[in-house]
Amino acid sequence: MKEIRYKPIGTIHSPFKDIEGVPIQPTAAEGVAGTVEIKPKYADGLKDIEGFSHIILMYHFHLSEGYSLEAKPFMDNSLHGVFATRAPRRPNPIGISVVRLVRVEGRTLHIEGVDIVDGTPLLDIKPYVPEFDAAKVERIGWLSEKASKVHKVRADDRFR
Amino acid sequence: MKEIRYKPIGTIHSPFKDIEGVPIQPTAAEGVAGTVEIKPKYADGLKDIEGFSHIILMYHFHLSEGYSLEAKPFMDNSLHGVFATRAPRRPNPIGISVVRLVRVEGRTLHIEGVDIVDGTPLLDIKPYVPEFDAAKVERIGWLSEKASKVHKVRADDRFR
Repeated sequence: MKEIRYKPIGTIHSPFKDIEGVPIQPTAAEGVAGTVEIKPKYADGLKDIEGFSHIILMYHFHLSEGYSLEAKPFMDNSLHGVFATRAPRRPNPIGISVVRLVRVEGRTLHIEGVDIVDGTPLLDIKPYVPEFDAAKVERIGWLSEKASKVHKVRADDRFR
Repeated sequence: MKEIRYKPIGTIHSPFKDIEGVPIQPTAAEGVAGTVEIKPKYADGLKDIEGFSHIILMYHFHLSEGYSLEAKPFMDNSLHGVFATRAPRRPNPIGISVVRLVRVEGRTLHIEGVDIVDGTPLLDIKPYVPEFDAAKVERIGWLSEKASKVHKVRADDRFR
């Protein structure tokens, strides 16, 4: 398989018009409201989604150009392999965020905890289910002393 | 943005040669071992990944053909919107699994908790960080009484 082709199923809207200032992760974006607009042709796929308090959004980092195999993440000043970071400039620039689903109005999802730039193309939505998606970790590598900083740090322009 | 193009960064290997019999989620695949082979050109992106006990694999459901907007998941007999399920036949057939990273040997990752078919093209790896990826849910919709069944149910051929 040489190339894989996807089409956006919708668009994510948020208060963040640029990369700079975007919260680094949904945990740092608590209460930040946004919407997801699903294209009409995919609307029937939303049936029963309102039963879930949290959903996983998968999206294309459309503002990322190219990639580096090593990256200095927002929360560190050392270089790490890109797959050991959440940096957006990745070989396949796919982003993932777990957000709260507040309510559904037709093909608009009202969400909270949005750490995503306005206008981001949406690739997929999955229900968030702790039994599937939560793991008990022993180690979080270079993030060990830094994960809690996520509440304070905001993105700068390094991945523009 | 009309079309998004990605290239596999590697391949996932597992004991499952076909969809049938694959555990439905990593929690049901406890102890099932597999490997991830990263292509040489992306190997430098693995630096520091060994520090993480769990990683998120994002991959292309290469055996899924076409999609349905409503699906009967393995654990239910009712139709639900595909975005309220984890069914592989999705508009953009992207899969996600949180697996345990056992050890790294060059560009081979030894993993456990594999619910993925052998030969699956890998799109991305991210470090799993509870602070980013775990949510406290209030509702898991139609899965409320079914999520615990995941340990018993195995995939059949309905998404072949």
